[in-house]
Amino acid sequence: MLTLSKKAQAMPASPIRKLIPFSDAAKKRGIKVYHLNIGQPDIKSPVEALNAVKENDLELIAYPHSAGDIELRKGLAKYYQGIGIDVDETCINITNGGSEALQIAIGATCDPDDEIIVFEPFYTNYNTFALQNDVKFQPITTSIENGFALPPMSEIEKHITPKTKGIIINNPGNPTGTLYRKEDIAEIGKIAKKHQLYIYTDEVYREFCYTEEPHYSCMELEGLEDNVILIDSVSKRYSLCGVRIGFIVSKNKEVMKAVLRYAQARLCSPKYGQIAALGALDAPQSYFDEVKAEYIHRRDVLVEALSKMEGVVCPTPMGAFYAAVELPIDDSDKFAQWLLEEFQYEGQTVMVAPMAGFYATKGLGTKQVRIAYVLKEEDLKAAMKCLEVALKQYPGRTI
Amino acid sequence: MLTLSKKAQAMPASPIRKLIPFSDAAKKRGIKVYHLNIGQPDIKSPVEALNAVKENDLELIAYPHSAGDIELRKGLAKYYQGIGIDVDETCINITNGGSEALQIAIGATCDPDDEIIVFEPFYTNYNTFALQNDVKFQPITTSIENGFALPPMSEIEKHITPKTKGIIINNPGNPTGTLYRKEDIAEIGKIAKKHQLYIYTDEVYREFCYTEEPHYSCMELEGLEDNVILIDSVSKRYSLCGVRIGFIVSKNKEVMKAVLRYAQARLCSPKYGQIAALGALDAPQSYFDEVKAEYIHRRDVLVEALSKMEGVVCPTPMGAFYAAVELPIDDSDKFAQWLLEEFQYEGQTVMVAPMAGFYATKGLGTKQVRIAYVLKEEDLKAAMKCLEVALKQYPGRTI
Repeated sequence: MLTLSKKAQAMPASPIRKLIPFSDAAKKRGIKVYHLNIGQPDIKSPVEALNAVKENDLELIAYPHSAGDIELRKGLAKYYQGIGIDVDETCINITNGGSEALQIAIGATCDPDDEIIVFEPFYTNYNTFALQNDVKFQPITTSIENGFALPPMSEIEKHITPKTKGIIINNPGNPTGTLYRKEDIAEIGKIAKKHQLYIYTDEVYREFCYTEEPHYSCMELEGLEDNVILIDSVSKRYSLCGVRIGFIVSKNKEVMKAVLRYAQARLCSPKYGQIAALGALDAPQSYFDEVKAEYIHRRDVLVEALSKMEGVVCPTPMGAFYAAVELPIDDSDKFAQWLLEEFQYEGQTVMVAPMAGFYATKGLGTKQVRIAYVLKEEDLKAAMKCLEVALKQYPGRTI
Repeated sequence: MLTLSKKAQAMPASPIRKLIPFSDAAKKRGIKVYHLNIGQPDIKSPVEALNAVKENDLELIAYPHSAGDIELRKGLAKYYQGIGIDVDETCINITNGGSEALQIAIGATCDPDDEIIVFEPFYTNYNTFALQNDVKFQPITTSIENGFALPPMSEIEKHITPKTKGIIINNPGNPTGTLYRKEDIAEIGKIAKKHQLYIYTDEVYREFCYTEEPHYSCMELEGLEDNVILIDSVSKRYSLCGVRIGFIVSKNKEVMKAVLRYAQARLCSPKYGQIAALGALDAPQSYFDEVKAEYIHRRDVLVEALSKMEGVVCPTPMGAFYAAVELPIDDSDKFAQWLLEEFQYEGQTVMVAPMAGFYATKGLGTKQVRIAYVLKEEDLKAAMKCLEVALKQYPGRTI
């Protein structure tokens, strides 16, 4: 029979992208839509990356090595060594973005019905990686009231069963903007060591930390060399989302061998992306300093605007470029669609990501939206004005 | 426990790539290795593709649409219409190479333990796509004696069970070089219609057919619009293996919706690759004419050289750029390794792909190797000389 698979039927539409037909329709009606739904920064990619591609003189774009070009892996190893992560090129496998990195990492280590602990809300696509690998999430709910802080070790341990294979850490976090400190990571390390769990640590927003302390990576945990699998990417760090280059990094040799077999099965990651990523490694510190200053400014603009709206709750994000925001509304799915279908303010509206899809537990996040502060100040202010007006007009408002 | 998944343990090393450490070691000893193991042509990519990338003026490499850039999908639709495949851009989803295309196509349509009929020998990585999707292959063995021709319809039907979800067709075929004619495809169509099966038709070598008849695509079968899912790629057609751009093409709207959800889960295909692919569509007919003439010449050189070696069987390939060759040896895995580890002729040796990994049935293909005739005449002749000498010296020779 020409049916779809059960997985295909169960696979959720992306909450970040599912409303695109509505935003397209709004644009067709002449309405300007501010896209705060997707983590697509308007920041330019480093010229070092762009020029490396433009100036390449290859006459044949052949298959790169399945593990990735050796020059890129060596360059990345140097970058990691510079931030206190002691790895060499044999600990790195290039992937098609951070998405494939996590998907392969889970696939290589988890059998069907194995469990992974996640702190919800979490990046929505984790759900699809679990689904595709038949892995079950054991969600531990964190609360907007305390800035989505990690629960105490005793609480986390309650969720560990004989089926538990690992813990996903996302630091700084999407969609919350929460930054875990060294002490938090050390606690996670203790649990992982005690119960022999993998730590899948998604650190793609590492460069976007808004405190004085440097970012502390799970890869720095001593005695956990075989436990930690780092998921990384150039997408956000260098504003190179479209080149599709991520990495799996681990000192666990058996894991890296298995990762290579997965990598061989899909042949290789894109050559041009690897050229861009290698070029990006030459971007000067001033590139990051400017980008970071810009994001801190945008965050402040966002938080200030939200703080003036009645009934809106938004912990100040300390990392990444997202804010998880609770709104005085009935349902954020309905609200986000209404913003695109029925609302406009002076010919403009705003697109946000409803957050129910960022939870594994049904019924949570239904009043929350994720706002990506990826647009410049002027646009962000205009978008916040739209939101403010919308919250006063929305038929499902609760205050 | 920090164990690997059962799938990771079961995942075979690629027979095309697993001997790379041995070829690297041979090169370190100063031996020149002719790589006939991998389908990596030495043909230049079209300048239209290379220049499109070099001349791009993007300042920010953002996420493309999950289905692929609309310009590229429209351009591809026009290409397909030009060869008798009536599709528009809504029937196309860009993927990370043909590999991801087949993996998503299987994942979107098959549940665990569903069965797919394959004609063995087949492209070795099909095994890993089946493994990753928990799908079982029902292999139907074809024979080198009759050029790996399709068996009669009655024979194929014997392998259909209530679990059978589809049939994989690879035309022209890797590793056999076999080309199915319109009548063969019509038979497959009859079976698919009668039993309501999907046809996953891998046509990435479409441009490499060495007969007067034009290539006949399963997409041309009438009344099977919902059954056929085309797997395609720019890798071989434009010698752009490294850009990682493939496509899923189908008129089945439900399948395409499910494919899009899978595509959203990994965000997008690489932007630079899409730019190269769009540029490649402008390559003139003369590019293909020259490439095709070159491959026919290489094939003739190869077949002639092989025909002079005692005990070697090689049907003349009518498509793609592979030959499946039976050798008078004990075991092709051992032989291929011996060629790299112990053999040399005037400082040179040859690397081939042992074919056991191209079969689903254990014990088959153990005397066969796949030879990719992807090198220029001079190198191909030198490689064949190495093979000829090696077959006389190999301790495990059977004549």
